[in-house]
Amino acid sequence: MDTHDLVAVSDRRQQHVERVLAAFFSDSHYRAKALGAPYAALWQTLERNASGGKRFRPRMVMAAYESLGGTDLDAAAHVGAAFELLHTALIVHDDVIDRDFVRRGGPNVSGSYRDIATTAGIPLPTAEHRGMSVAIIAGDLALFNSYRLIDRSGVDGLLRTRLHDILDEAMFVSAAGELYDVDFSIRAEPPTVDEIIEMEALKTAGYSFEGPLAAGAVLAGGSPEAIAALSTFGRDIGIAYQIVDDLLGVFGDEGATGKTTLGDLREGKRTVLLAHAVGHPQWAEVSDLFGRPDLTAEEGDRIRTVLEEIGSRRFAEALARDFANRAWEALVGDDLPGTVREEFRPIVAAVLGRVR
Amino acid sequence: MDTHDLVAVSDRRQQHVERVLAAFFSDSHYRAKALGAPYAALWQTLERNASGGKRFRPRMVMAAYESLGGTDLDAAAHVGAAFELLHTALIVHDDVIDRDFVRRGGPNVSGSYRDIATTAGIPLPTAEHRGMSVAIIAGDLALFNSYRLIDRSGVDGLLRTRLHDILDEAMFVSAAGELYDVDFSIRAEPPTVDEIIEMEALKTAGYSFEGPLAAGAVLAGGSPEAIAALSTFGRDIGIAYQIVDDLLGVFGDEGATGKTTLGDLREGKRTVLLAHAVGHPQWAEVSDLFGRPDLTAEEGDRIRTVLEEIGSRRFAEALARDFANRAWEALVGDDLPGTVREEFRPIVAAVLGRVR
Repeated sequence: MDTHDLVAVSDRRQQHVERVLAAFFSDSHYRAKALGAPYAALWQTLERNASGGKRFRPRMVMAAYESLGGTDLDAAAHVGAAFELLHTALIVHDDVIDRDFVRRGGPNVSGSYRDIATTAGIPLPTAEHRGMSVAIIAGDLALFNSYRLIDRSGVDGLLRTRLHDILDEAMFVSAAGELYDVDFSIRAEPPTVDEIIEMEALKTAGYSFEGPLAAGAVLAGGSPEAIAALSTFGRDIGIAYQIVDDLLGVFGDEGATGKTTLGDLREGKRTVLLAHAVGHPQWAEVSDLFGRPDLTAEEGDRIRTVLEEIGSRRFAEALARDFANRAWEALVGDDLPGTVREEFRPIVAAVLGRVR
Repeated sequence: MDTHDLVAVSDRRQQHVERVLAAFFSDSHYRAKALGAPYAALWQTLERNASGGKRFRPRMVMAAYESLGGTDLDAAAHVGAAFELLHTALIVHDDVIDRDFVRRGGPNVSGSYRDIATTAGIPLPTAEHRGMSVAIIAGDLALFNSYRLIDRSGVDGLLRTRLHDILDEAMFVSAAGELYDVDFSIRAEPPTVDEIIEMEALKTAGYSFEGPLAAGAVLAGGSPEAIAALSTFGRDIGIAYQIVDDLLGVFGDEGATGKTTLGDLREGKRTVLLAHAVGHPQWAEVSDLFGRPDLTAEEGDRIRTVLEEIGSRRFAEALARDFANRAWEALVGDDLPGTVREEFRPIVAAVLGRVR
């Protein structure tokens, strides 16, 4: 397929997913209106927070599904939308845990409701807690309804149970990863590289890659071997993707990523980069700066220089390449048709293309 | 039935519910262990927080189910356990929203994890946020799994969909009630009596009474009229129960309820009592005391005296009686067999017996 075909496929899939999500939010909004305008407004805020992303998880479901020969795009879009809604729930709650009030350059749920409160003259700490309280409620709604999108897919019986099991497992492991992330942030000794990889695999790769790919494969009626191969691919490409994400958070091109490269450094985010750096004598020169909320651009450059000089950047890049290559290997056996490799080659290439 | 029979029925039902919940937590704990000891420990904390309650919601499911002739107690216990798990999720998150660290005299999820952090030398604000973060995760797990207990009930097809719909609606309205509760706590003007009743009906009565009763009736194959009658009963008895709860929170016998009667006054809890009192000239004498975290026992007595003198207590008691009587009326038509009235008479009597 040439690039033009890829875009067409992607657009067609995307439209299915958008339709499913639009119908879900429209229904929910209608139901909520009967319980009062402020509740309807909360649903609108939730919908806004569920929009604007890359719809990454539905893309994974549909890629696995179509490349294994599935043709009921509406059913696949429902399963994809279920993962998207789970993602929305998890990031809304993750933002509460991280005390973040902004996402993608605009206020998130916490931020929107904090701002309404401050505008009404409520003092900031109370307004922030109000924003976080509403975000807990909003995340609960997204979480509780993600199952139901699978129910609406028209899939029944054992197949539905298997899809529920996969969604269940995705959420179950993500909660473990979130717990370990919270643990890292308060414990004295810094996490090791292996601990970071394990945490990121649990917290993000499971529900973003492994789960959606397995669900798409199961829905397509893939063989046990094909399902296993795509799950393995998902786990490894998910870890690679996460490491690349952490690299871009520090070394990325702000113009291309749309994110400041000071955010992660100011937050003191625990990544593979940090796990590699700590313990190195040269890191001690900048470790006091790391995690400072008022870090300047110049101080950020100093940290970056150290991370380059002691090889942390190179280490993380090699690790990401490693996981991306392992992911690709999962796809090259006889268990999968060539269509699957065709489908996922661009994704592996994109991950590899983002590391030097 | 004499009292002895009632206790025997109640014990038998209770045992079924406990078995279902024990099996669910045992499975989850086993799954969690594979992802690490701290995650398994979180599941133990969640199980502890799901225990020790009155299992009120499963009781409602089973009472509706058996009084309408249902005989598969195991299926009913699964549905009851689903509501119990939903309840656990909602109170764990409600405690985060209310910044409570204690429930039933012991640390709740937030409290347990806050205490672990302070013991490790973490400063209190960070430790509190850590406790609340873990409680968000724990509540998410309980919430996400409540659906699945219905899946495990062995009920399939349309019936399962209807049970899911009822659980879905219960959670949907509870979220609206929680939102309005948060809104009340920050807005300038105090809520009216009607607003309080509406909020309590949404936040608590729906998922504690109306939903469980409807689910039990649907599972028993009750007629549409029987299901509607039990839903109406549930809504009204739920509101009555909530008003009584608010009365006991201020005027109760601490020895009997196990709760301090200063808690609600110190919290400044918005109840029917308060909605009636505000605006009355005599309330102005004590309104500054209301909501003070350091309220003394003597100051509490002063507030109580005013609430009695201006008739707020009497008003709330009459309102509770009113709703309890309306609830009973929903059961007296021809749509329901006499067994249903027999089953629920003691509950109505208990509510009425708690108001003068």
